[in-house]
Amino acid sequence: MGSRGANANGAVDKGVDFANYFCTYGFLYHQKEMLCDRVRMDAYYNAIFQNKHHFQGKAVLDVGTGSGILAIWSAQAGARKVYAVEATKMAEHARELVKANKLQDIVEVIEGTMEDVTLPEKVDVIISEWMGYFLLRESMLDSVIYARDHWLKPDGVMYPSHARMWMAPIRSSLADHRSSDYEGAMQDWYGFVDETKANYGVDMSVLTNPYNEEQGKYYLQTSIWNSLHPNQIIGTPVTIKELDCLTTTIEDIRDVRSSISLSITAENSRLCGFGGWFDVHFRGSNKNLAQQEVELTTAPSIDSGTHWGQQVFLLHPPQQVQRGDGIILHFSMIRNKENHRLMDVDLGCEIKQLSGKLLPPIQKKFYIE
Amino acid sequence: MGSRGANANGAVDKGVDFANYFCTYGFLYHQKEMLCDRVRMDAYYNAIFQNKHHFQGKAVLDVGTGSGILAIWSAQAGARKVYAVEATKMAEHARELVKANKLQDIVEVIEGTMEDVTLPEKVDVIISEWMGYFLLRESMLDSVIYARDHWLKPDGVMYPSHARMWMAPIRSSLADHRSSDYEGAMQDWYGFVDETKANYGVDMSVLTNPYNEEQGKYYLQTSIWNSLHPNQIIGTPVTIKELDCLTTTIEDIRDVRSSISLSITAENSRLCGFGGWFDVHFRGSNKNLAQQEVELTTAPSIDSGTHWGQQVFLLHPPQQVQRGDGIILHFSMIRNKENHRLMDVDLGCEIKQLSGKLLPPIQKKFYIE
Repeated sequence: MGSRGANANGAVDKGVDFANYFCTYGFLYHQKEMLCDRVRMDAYYNAIFQNKHHFQGKAVLDVGTGSGILAIWSAQAGARKVYAVEATKMAEHARELVKANKLQDIVEVIEGTMEDVTLPEKVDVIISEWMGYFLLRESMLDSVIYARDHWLKPDGVMYPSHARMWMAPIRSSLADHRSSDYEGAMQDWYGFVDETKANYGVDMSVLTNPYNEEQGKYYLQTSIWNSLHPNQIIGTPVTIKELDCLTTTIEDIRDVRSSISLSITAENSRLCGFGGWFDVHFRGSNKNLAQQEVELTTAPSIDSGTHWGQQVFLLHPPQQVQRGDGIILHFSMIRNKENHRLMDVDLGCEIKQLSGKLLPPIQKKFYIE
Repeated sequence: MGSRGANANGAVDKGVDFANYFCTYGFLYHQKEMLCDRVRMDAYYNAIFQNKHHFQGKAVLDVGTGSGILAIWSAQAGARKVYAVEATKMAEHARELVKANKLQDIVEVIEGTMEDVTLPEKVDVIISEWMGYFLLRESMLDSVIYARDHWLKPDGVMYPSHARMWMAPIRSSLADHRSSDYEGAMQDWYGFVDETKANYGVDMSVLTNPYNEEQGKYYLQTSIWNSLHPNQIIGTPVTIKELDCLTTTIEDIRDVRSSISLSITAENSRLCGFGGWFDVHFRGSNKNLAQQEVELTTAPSIDSGTHWGQQVFLLHPPQQVQRGDGIILHFSMIRNKENHRLMDVDLGCEIKQLSGKLLPPIQKKFYIE
């Protein structure tokens, strides 16, 4: 586990990053999964075709074009030129797709990482689908910011233009499942220690603490992808971060901190943890507004789920709460030291009951893997 | 997919290799899985304790000690000194385990890759559990060969001393399952192409061939881990490679080739493919024989399965065969260019029916992932 993605001084080893990250996006299967996400597709499609004035006759840069779909739509909406940058071999497929759709005179697919690419001109629009789980996992926004700072004209527009991270208190049976999986893993370990001593004469008990830590991290401290039902939300959702894609900096997203109060809205429920999701908006810029603002939300939904789902941060044990109880949520998220595309979260939670009684504060570390 | 593990000229990028490979072995969970493999544990335990004369008063090198179990046993069997080399952070746990078992004066845990380590002396025994799926996956034997060439005394002993790769014709319902999963994936793709054209105005059909290739590779050409029942074997198992660990070279294992004939022993059966497994033996060396020879086999077994299971190479479609039909099997296995720890296999199969009729030869590429 010595060197996963970032070395001691924080610089990224490109080969390791490729092995850990880009590799996935080289598979058409994975591209298809994203292309089958109707909420995602409709949002980008509508954002482009309901705002053709942003594209007609313009130069567009698509950061991380993947199969090339956003670049193709941009061209179909009237762009003069589209630069479609892709780090993986998917670039070759994108090039074929562009040609098959007869847009090779407009869309230029460039294989390379955004940071290494040189364009012949600055662009009017930067479009990108850069959002990872809970918005910032994958840290791909870094490359979009880089692209903006180097290649966007002063009055250029970002697609999407804004993004928000949301959290809400939830109830979830996952909390009990995870606890009991963890208990099972430890029971199993104790049996293993006994048997190894009896059968093979080696005392493994010195590894009980590290094993407990490893399993605890896995079962209890790793956030979980989940498709939450709206009725699992038991309190007010709150925005913990807002980003204006035209102005946000890498410093803004490297260390996300928020302390915010919210209240329980469900009667007599169990607070099992918090769900996190994001939305992004396509509203152009102040100088260059969208004609039709489009929203892409990954909030819990009965029939409009996305492949992003929600990230669930579970508390153990769950806490009984009542309507009107107040919660102060302290959230902080930084990048994992060993792999800058993963995240370490500190989550604090102070519950003030309607009666005025303060419960002992909860403080927990999570890993978004 | 540009650079997974090996760069253009075949040299291994250590950071990438760590990300792809060593990382797994840093988890106690994974170590425990191996330590719970009774067949594996019993074989090494018996090999050591039934051949104490090889260890008493001797210097031992354990290549890739993991949790340290083989080093500890070597010390318990009377070794004067054990050097336990481990590339991952697991070395720290091994050190704790050694101390808890009061062997810190004998076992020295060294964190580093074998190729980078310097020992203060040559050793009498090299012990290692280096075997991957179908013996050679992981390419860890390379490091054992390196250790032997640099650190084993001329009359030293290898534990294990010999290894063999086996193959046998099998029947398996996996062949039908995989075929139908593949068909399903392609049906799904055609639906996707139609919908993307209808809903989003983009013609994806140019990607049908590459998608077909990707899915075919995944469903039909990737060998599968399986725990075969002995009655799934429908013909004579054959040895396709034998290695003497004292003399084998990296050249010997870099390119494994074999053409061998075998016959169908089951009445009226379906040849669905071939199962591959290995065994290793602990028999010391010619100059320095084991008192008690021990075998570790991963052959199909009703009650002595191992975590290695078998690797299954499926033919599509299966072929009807009869008792007495002859098969000439052409096998070749080389390392994957992008990740030298994975393998590319070419498998040829000529069936000569008992009647004398020759069926059209089958030739197929497989990937051991």
